[in-house]
Amino acid sequence: MHAPRELPVIAADILARVRARRPRVHCITNAVAQQFTANMLLATNAVPSMTTDPAEVADFVARADALLVNLGTLDAERHAAIDLALTAAGERVPWALDPVFVDRSATRAALASALAARRPRVIRLNRAEFATLAGVEGGAGAGGDVLARYAQRQGTVIGLTGDRDSVTDGKRTVAIENGDPLMAKVTAMGCAASALVAACLAVEADAWRATAAGLIVIGVAGEVAALAAHGPGTFAAAIIDALHGLDEATILARARLAI
Amino acid sequence: MHAPRELPVIAADILARVRARRPRVHCITNAVAQQFTANMLLATNAVPSMTTDPAEVADFVARADALLVNLGTLDAERHAAIDLALTAAGERVPWALDPVFVDRSATRAALASALAARRPRVIRLNRAEFATLAGVEGGAGAGGDVLARYAQRQGTVIGLTGDRDSVTDGKRTVAIENGDPLMAKVTAMGCAASALVAACLAVEADAWRATAAGLIVIGVAGEVAALAAHGPGTFAAAIIDALHGLDEATILARARLAI
Amino acid sequence: MHAPRELPVIAADILARVRARRPRVHCITNAVAQQFTANMLLATNAVPSMTTDPAEVADFVARADALLVNLGTLDAERHAAIDLALTAAGERVPWALDPVFVDRSATRAALASALAARRPRVIRLNRAEFATLAGVEGGAGAGGDVLARYAQRQGTVIGLTGDRDSVTDGKRTVAIENGDPLMAKVTAMGCAASALVAACLAVEADAWRATAAGLIVIGVAGEVAALAAHGPGTFAAAIIDALHGLDEATILARARLAI
Repeated sequence: MHAPRELPVIAADILARVRARRPRVHCITNAVAQQFTANMLLATNAVPSMTTDPAEVADFVARADALLVNLGTLDAERHAAIDLALTAAGERVPWALDPVFVDRSATRAALASALAARRPRVIRLNRAEFATLAGVEGGAGAGGDVLARYAQRQGTVIGLTGDRDSVTDGKRTVAIENGDPLMAKVTAMGCAASALVAACLAVEADAWRATAAGLIVIGVAGEVAALAAHGPGTFAAAIIDALHGLDEATILARARLAI
Repeated sequence: MHAPRELPVIAADILARVRARRPRVHCITNAVAQQFTANMLLATNAVPSMTTDPAEVADFVARADALLVNLGTLDAERHAAIDLALTAAGERVPWALDPVFVDRSATRAALASALAARRPRVIRLNRAEFATLAGVEGGAGAGGDVLARYAQRQGTVIGLTGDRDSVTDGKRTVAIENGDPLMAKVTAMGCAASALVAACLAVEADAWRATAAGLIVIGVAGEVAALAAHGPGTFAAAIIDALHGLDEATILARARLAI
Repeated sequence: MHAPRELPVIAADILARVRARRPRVHCITNAVAQQFTANMLLATNAVPSMTTDPAEVADFVARADALLVNLGTLDAERHAAIDLALTAAGERVPWALDPVFVDRSATRAALASALAARRPRVIRLNRAEFATLAGVEGGAGAGGDVLARYAQRQGTVIGLTGDRDSVTDGKRTVAIENGDPLMAKVTAMGCAASALVAACLAVEADAWRATAAGLIVIGVAGEVAALAAHGPGTFAAAIIDALHGLDEATILARARLAI
């Protein structure tokens, strides 16, 4: 188990590797999130692509270094694209699942459960989404033990975000207390966090480290952005600026972690 | 009939209720508008959702507090989703219609007419769109009398936006003279106005008041934003900031209404 | 052949005509690019529309002054829409092709070749995309001679963008050295450049001049934006502001051209 004090250094190193290697991250993500997600990835020097066309998605994924599957604004093409993308990804391309709004639709929840069984390296979601996905009664059930057991049973890492984030692979768990309330006022912030985690997966084989790194980085960037913002509109631009300019010293000074 | 002097107080009160109750607003809206609309709704504390997937749209609408149907970038999925959404909305979920660009396509105009007959609480549109929808010859025909007669015949509220907005239910009419020219230079500003009106419908049963409130609030936010903006790019962020921070005193000081 | 020193004046004049005539530019473009493209066009006073619905795209194109066909996030509807749009455009509506990411998918590359044969006035693309489209081995093959020969053979203008842009119709060639590195960090910047070129085509019959004008204008706007930006997030808003406020003196002072 890593002591939390090591993780900020690891997070800064993973971000440095993303900047240096420029991983291609293919995102099957919702229409609302596409632009912001692409700009957040570009701010880390990663190279996003976003097509959901069944005729070409396999070509894109085969040349990608990581894959994000986000279930927002699902349509028939995205449904078909997800299956083709996961087949193209195979064992080589690591992927992250973002089961956005599974708590709102039974159809989507059933799809998310089926996808969770296809071995994503990471599932990034919020408390209500986790409760639905894990079949937990009420939000209160999503405590640390439940998270860890679910992660272990599924063989994946859970990155649960909220006022306080939790990242667990069943054995290792860390809580991340970074971020700013304005992050909840910008649409697709969670989707962009999942995309950052996917970019980290492209350069770091340990999915628990990659997930923690992605969430630390976006949380610290959010804090830096809040210093420059006058509300959620300017905050959305400022967090892209902050992510682009983020240095190791800021990550080390601001990361707030707990076991 | 409400005197215009009462409406700013009513608008501030409706905005306060949106902030407190956090209504879920499901938006079937065009691809260009989705991100900006979601961020404008989040700035009022409302909770947007945007799926157009026929398999899940009914689930989302059934759990929503208001519905927006915007006809931009219509595709086969959106066509199917609109019908399913209106059926799911039934009498319980109030809905607003935004017949964007009906003046550009005969197909779209025919759909808009059919939807106008399904009793939206509000139709929010511009002068050219109204002329097409109401079958008025030329833009000049869309005077106050024509608007009021159309509203009364259809049993809906018309929220006509432009340099000067008009809101009428056939009996009550108010003109709103707020706003800034930069609002016309940001794509989807009208679509976002319709979404704000839908959010107001979720907390206010009188659709005329709700529509006037939504348009007063966005107009005043636009004026506040113009003070901080250096052009349409920074204006788009500044109006989100302004909407997020808008207080009653600013609404009362800036609202410019006329009968 | 125009001396490069004439082109900045021509570019400023073409921009002035776009502002005065407000051309309608119909864009079949990718989901990631739609909002930013619409806002960039609005900043020049052009009037964007974006539908890809096969049932109505012909109506929109028939009333448009220029057409953009961008191959990003292709789906079945966009495929169908492209064909209908080009038929509706006929000889009257000039169109620009943006074969985005043809280097990533064989399916898309085949479509791009078929479309290049349908006489776009301009093809705007980057070096990797050109190499794929022209069947050139390696990026190094895309030198000035190859570009010019391809343009002459296809009867089109090539607008190749990168650190240094090249615009050629096979006889006339100009290099444009404007721009800022942050332009590569904002998604859809190339797509927006193609849309600006389409707007210029609407008011300038000489496609080589129109293309050079569009790329000079966006490059100069990028330089002005960089002065106000703190990173790629604020840059995306600042370039819209800069485009909106751009005057002839700034274009003349900043344009850096070479044969």
